[in-house]
Order: sequence, then C-alpha cells, then structure tokens
Amino acid sequence: MTSSSNSQWRLAARPVGAPKPSDWRFVEEPAASPADGQFVVENLFLSLDPAMRGWLGEAKSYMPPVAVGDVMRAVGAGRVIESRNAAFPVGAHVTGVFGVQRLAVSDGRGASIVDPSLAPLPVWLGALGLPGLTAYFGLFDVGRMAAGECVVVSGAAGAVGSVVGQIAKARGARVVGIAGGAAKCAWLRELGFDATIDYKAPGVKLKHALREACPEGIDVYFDNVGGDTLDAALAVLARHARVIVCGAISQYNNAGPIRGPANYLSLLVNRASMTGFVVLDYAARYAEGIAALAGWYASGALKTRETTITGLSEFPRALDALFAGENIGKMILAL
Amino acid sequence: MTSSSNSQWRLAARPVGAPKPSDWRFVEEPAASPADGQFVVENLFLSLDPAMRGWLGEAKSYMPPVAVGDVMRAVGAGRVIESRNAAFPVGAHVTGVFGVQRLAVSDGRGASIVDPSLAPLPVWLGALGLPGLTAYFGLFDVGRMAAGECVVVSGAAGAVGSVVGQIAKARGARVVGIAGGAAKCAWLRELGFDATIDYKAPGVKLKHALREACPEGIDVYFDNVGGDTLDAALAVLARHARVIVCGAISQYNNAGPIRGPANYLSLLVNRASMTGFVVLDYAARYAEGIAALAGWYASGALKTRETTITGLSEFPRALDALFAGENIGKMILAL
Repeated sequence: MTSSSNSQWRLAARPVGAPKPSDWRFVEEPAASPADGQFVVENLFLSLDPAMRGWLGEAKSYMPPVAVGDVMRAVGAGRVIESRNAAFPVGAHVTGVFGVQRLAVSDGRGASIVDPSLAPLPVWLGALGLPGLTAYFGLFDVGRMAAGECVVVSGAAGAVGSVVGQIAKARGARVVGIAGGAAKCAWLRELGFDATIDYKAPGVKLKHALREACPEGIDVYFDNVGGDTLDAALAVLARHARVIVCGAISQYNNAGPIRGPANYLSLLVNRASMTGFVVLDYAARYAEGIAALAGWYASGALKTRETTITGLSEFPRALDALFAGENIGKMILAL
Repeated sequence: MTSSSNSQWRLAARPVGAPKPSDWRFVEEPAASPADGQFVVENLFLSLDPAMRGWLGEAKSYMPPVAVGDVMRAVGAGRVIESRNAAFPVGAHVTGVFGVQRLAVSDGRGASIVDPSLAPLPVWLGALGLPGLTAYFGLFDVGRMAAGECVVVSGAAGAVGSVVGQIAKARGARVVGIAGGAAKCAWLRELGFDATIDYKAPGVKLKHALREACPEGIDVYFDNVGGDTLDAALAVLARHARVIVCGAISQYNNAGPIRGPANYLSLLVNRASMTGFVVLDYAARYAEGIAALAGWYASGALKTRETTITGLSEFPRALDALFAGENIGKMILAL
C-alpha cells in the first residue's frame, strides 16, 4: 500500500438485522488527486459510532443513507498530506467526515483543524468531538439539567454516556450509570459516578435497582439504549422528569420493528417529557460546547478512555464489537 | 326514592381488563345531613370520563385510586338542595367531584357555582369543564401550538378532542381529526375540521391517510387514544413536532401491558418531543381557560354535543359505552 493507492470499505448491500461480512466490500483503488481548494487527509483514527447502523438503512433519517456501492461514512482524524487549500496546510491535524478509507479528499466542509498537544487525536473523536457535544447539548439544552437533580444515563461507559455522567457531576447532579459488566461499572466509579447498575449481573432487576439508586425518582434520563432499559427508567421517573432520546443501540440491529416503551404513560402521570435531538442542529454552538468540554478535560474533571482496534481491514469486526458492547469508552479504529 | 334516601354506585372489586357487572355494587342508603360548612347537592348530570378507568386500578397515578367499597368518583353537575355553607346557597347550580350517586355532601372544596343561563349544565361538564380545560392547556401550553401549524387530534369526536380541534381552528391552525365512524367524521366536518380520518372505514391505512392529510407532516399531535394511532402519528411528524400525551383510551382496558409506541425514535429523527400533563396542575389558571372557552362558546366558534344516557342505574353500561366509543361529543349520564 503506497500513498498512490487507497484502501476503502464500501457498502455492498443493505444489512437486514446485524451487518454480515457480505454486506461490505474491501477495495483498493488509485488515490484521487486534490483539485483546487481541496486537500488530502491520511486517516489515522476512525470513530465507530452507533449512528452508523442508521446510515445503513434505507429509511429517511437525519442524514441520507449511505448508498450501496459508496464508501462507508465515518468521522476520522488524520493529517493533511497534500493540499491545495490554504486553510488546511500539509501537516495540519484535522477531523471530519472522511469515510472508512485510508485517504480522503476534502474541500474542508465540516472539517476542523485540531491541536494534538491539547488532547490526543482519539479524544478529538470522543469527548472533544461529536460524542462529547452530544452529551453536552443533550444534557444541558434538551434535558435542562439543574444542580441537585438525579441524572441516570444508559450506555454509561460509552463515548457519549461517560461524558454525560462526568459533566453532570461537574455541574452538581447526582449521577447513576447503567452499563453492562463489572469492568465498565468499576471504571464509572473511578470517574466519580455516585452509583452504577450492571444490567448484566445475575439477578439484577433494573427497575428495582433504579428505585434504590434514585429513591426520589429520576429527574433526567439520558437514553442511549432503548428497549427494556428505557422502560425501566420510565417506571421510575420523578415528577417533571425529562427523558432525552439520544439513541437506542439495543434496537438498531433488530430485523423486525423497534420495541416501543410500554411505560410511556408514565410521562402523563409524572408530567414528564421525552425529547429527541440531533447534535448537528447545534453546529452554530459547537465552539461553546468544545470550550466547556476542553475546560473540564484540562482540569481533570472529564476523563477519557478508548477501546482501540487496529487495522483498516478490521472495520467490520470493530463495528460488530461496538454493537456487542465490547468497548469501554470510545471505540476507535486505528489505521 | 325520596330525598332522605341516596342511591350510589360503589366499587365492589378492582376490574381486570374491562369492568364487569360484578365489579360494581348499587346501594341505597340513608341520605347524610350536612354539617356546619357543608351542603347537599342533588346530581342532575354526571360526567363519564376515560380517566375513570385509571382510578379503578391499584397503581399510583395522579390521583389516589378509588378504594374498593367506596362510592365511584365522578364529576357531577347539580343543584344545592340543602345548605349550611353561605357560599353555596340552596338553589345554586354547582359542579364538583360529587361521585356516582344521587345526593352528595360537599364542603365546597373543588366545587364551583355555574350559570346555567350561559350554558346548559352538561356543557359545564364538557367544553366549559375539565375536558375543555384539558384541551386548552394541553394544546396551547404543553403543545405550544402556533397559527399555521398542522394539528392532528385523535379521539377527535370526544369531549376533549372536539374542543381541541375547534380551538386550534380558532387560533389559526389547520386541523385533522381522527375518529371512528362516518357519523363522527361528519360532525367534525360540521365543526370546521379541515380533514377527518375515519380509522374504522374499510381499507383505511392510518399512516397513509395522515400523510395525505398532512403533506408537510404533523406539527402538533394531541393524543387521546395511544396504540396504533399514536404509532401512525409518530411516523408522520414534522420536524420539531410536539406530541401531547393526554390519554390512551385504546389501552386502558388492557389486562396485559400497555403497547408502547414502536415509532418513538421518530422523536429523535425529527427533534420532536412527547409530553404528558395533568390538567389539575393548571388549577391556578382555570379562570383564564374558562374565559377563553366561554368566549368561543358564546361566539359560536366552539360548538358542543352530548351523548346522554339516562338513569343512575345505567352507570356501568354508560361507562362501557364510553370505552366502546359510542359517544359523539361528551358522554353524560342524566339522573
């Protein structure tokens, strides 16, 4: 592999249920040259995100689907290796929607220069990237979290959830994290979570565990997983609770319909709300969010961790691992 | 039956699924005398409300359950026939939570004097009572409806739904009503609804019908019924839509779990919210609501209709009829 050839993962077929190897195609093609105003990025790290599953479907969502035959969409972090765009000089470190490939040609739209001396590149894909911004705007804007409230987050040991919990603590909430496995829960306690619930532990009844952890009910529930977890949280809402619908990783690989939350009438009894959001709507305020997150990161209030799988060829396996919940912290593919 | 004896419906057992005759007990007992500060109301009309089903369950809700053995809770309208409370003199017409019985003793808490020359007593139980206030605060406060928006209401020919549609029109919305049966839909068109969907008509696909009626999506969905109807509406939300969870009459008689809305992730894609409320929280603003509703009623912008069943003995049948959707407009039991 030289810089004149480019390795890529392309979508071969729309997956039904969990993606299969035959849904992907690994191709090697000549590297494109940048036109005027463009530059070439060598991806060093790719972000693996639950949202990727949504991009593989046919349904209209908040982004167009990845077309069959196209390079798989992904956010990457890398280095500019060739440039005809003065704003992105050779040697600069950048993040952007660069795709699951070694080399990407960009005109700079949606790309940002990042400073690896402030934080390593993978952190710019996690706590200081879209996952961190998702946590920030979801919790404070959509969820209107106030100090002293009881915040519960599912997928708590993931890229978004681990930031939600830490910045909720930083702003004075009591924080309960739901995660699968003792290792994840141990990490959450290190991060300062007030309580953790290992939903995979034998005999755990999520609803009872939540009632114990939140004796006065949940004020803010930040949902990354959907399914049974969402239902359990709905059953334990406090009055005027806010449920933030960030994702539903437990449901994305369903071949059949999504399971709806049977306890949604708890919204009525508790005068509560359930609100969806898409972080891209906050683009005009990213600087505000990054500044706050970078401050917490610098002070040590916001800690990060990555689970890294190495090699572009490993992309399909890394995506499977993400949906199997094998990551602690941000799931990264290192090239 | 003289005024010294009182007929009552008491709860005999907690219903499982739809209430059965054996869940009720009709009793005749001596009429109570008012103590100092109390008065006696002779109920002339009783309001039959979907919420009644919730009061029969054991579960904590926004009101305590009716205890087994107690007189069934109901809002009534009647006349003061004996009084030791100067604020409620003999001959006054009053509404309040008087119970499913001929005579009620009240201390005036939650009771209001109403003027039958402004509107007949049954209207004070419907459009100018809690159902009207539920429509008003749900639509404008919880739903933040704006002129020009597309409003969809389910249970549109019911006591709440028919007010929702008319006051939404009065404030400049385009209004689509979902109801079961041609007669209900014909009435809604008389009321000025822009479109109606008869979900019981052969071959009707609710989602497709909603897409046709709301080509740019639903901005405000006022849900009284839950189930399939809620799911269809979620599939057709416009961006930033507000779903108001007022009730779920399709689900209240389920012996098993409530069916959750499988399409709830539409909240995410469309940056939409789903919010529950309880009208009792707006007690401090009832006067504001009543004033607005009475204005529309006086001007003819808000029309009302009742389905009346006569005879206290008919209470169980009237409640069944309400859940079977036999009423057009407000369901009333006339004594």
